[in-house]
Amino acid sequence: MNASALLLSSALLATAANAQPAAELKITRNGEHPSVRGAEANFTGTVRVDSLFQASAPARAGGGLVTFEPGARTAWHTHPLGQTLIVVQGVGQVRQWDGPVHEIRPGDVVWIPPNVKHWHGATPSQGMSHFAIAEALDGKSVEWLEKVSP
Amino acid sequence: MNASALLLSSALLATAANAQPAAELKITRNGEHPSVRGAEANFTGTVRVDSLFQASAPARAGGGLVTFEPGARTAWHTHPLGQTLIVVQGVGQVRQWDGPVHEIRPGDVVWIPPNVKHWHGATPSQGMSHFAIAEALDGKSVEWLEKVSP
Repeated sequence: MNASALLLSSALLATAANAQPAAELKITRNGEHPSVRGAEANFTGTVRVDSLFQASAPARAGGGLVTFEPGARTAWHTHPLGQTLIVVQGVGQVRQWDGPVHEIRPGDVVWIPPNVKHWHGATPSQGMSHFAIAEALDGKSVEWLEKVSP
Repeated sequence: MNASALLLSSALLATAANAQPAAELKITRNGEHPSVRGAEANFTGTVRVDSLFQASAPARAGGGLVTFEPGARTAWHTHPLGQTLIVVQGVGQVRQWDGPVHEIRPGDVVWIPPNVKHWHGATPSQGMSHFAIAEALDGKSVEWLEKVSP
C-alpha cells in the first residue's frame, strides 16, 4: 500500500468512526522526492539538497539534508529567524563574517542566530552532510549574498 | 580546543576586527549533553532522548533524537504547532486518534498537524530512532495525555 492509499484509508476510517477530524497526519515516504543539485548561484562545488519537510502555517519550520562534496560550500547568507545545523557525516566547516573557521563533526549542532552572515560546507579534502532547520519569516527562510572568496 | 574556547576566541577575534557583532554562532559539541531517559509518565518502555537544540526567541523550533527500544512508545499527546518526525533507524509506528497504525521506516518523514492527538514508537519486535522537531507556542511544544492502552 503506498502513502496515498494509506492516507486515503486513514481518512475513510476516521470518517466512519467519528466526525471528520480536524487534520490528518501526513507521511512522506523515503524515495518520493528526488534529490536536487544545489543552485550554482548559491553554492560553490557539488552540493546535493534533499528537502525533507516544510510545516504549514501557523507553524513555519522547514528542513532538509544537505550533502557537500569535498571543497563545496554555501555562498555567504543569512536567515531571518536563524538556522540550526546537525552534522551527520564527514567533516565540515562553518564561519561567520569576521569570525574564524570552525571545524564541525557528526553530532555537533550549530546555531546561527537571525541575520548573522555566514557560510558552511565541507573541508577541502572531505565531504560533509548536515540536517538544516530554519523557520520562515513572511515565507522566506534565507537571504543569499555573495560567494565566498576562494 | 573545546567549544567554550572556540566561542571565546571567536568573540575576541570579532571584537578586534570590528565593532561588537550582533550575535555569535554557537556550536554544541557531540558529547556535551548526556542522554536522558524518557519520563515514565510520558513513555511506555525504554526510551532515550538526546535533546539537540532549542532556538531562542524570536525563533521557536526545538529538536532532538528519540530512540525507542522494541515495544516502547509515547503516551498519547498533542503539539500546539505540530511536529515533524524524521525516521533514521529501525522500524516504527505512528497512529493518530481514530486512525490506523502506520509503519514508518528510515527516510520517512511524518507531519503531525497542530492539536492532533497521536502516539509514535517502535514496533513490538524492533527498535526505532527518529529526529523530532516542534515549535513552541508560549514556551510549550507538547501536551501530554493518557498512556496508550496495551
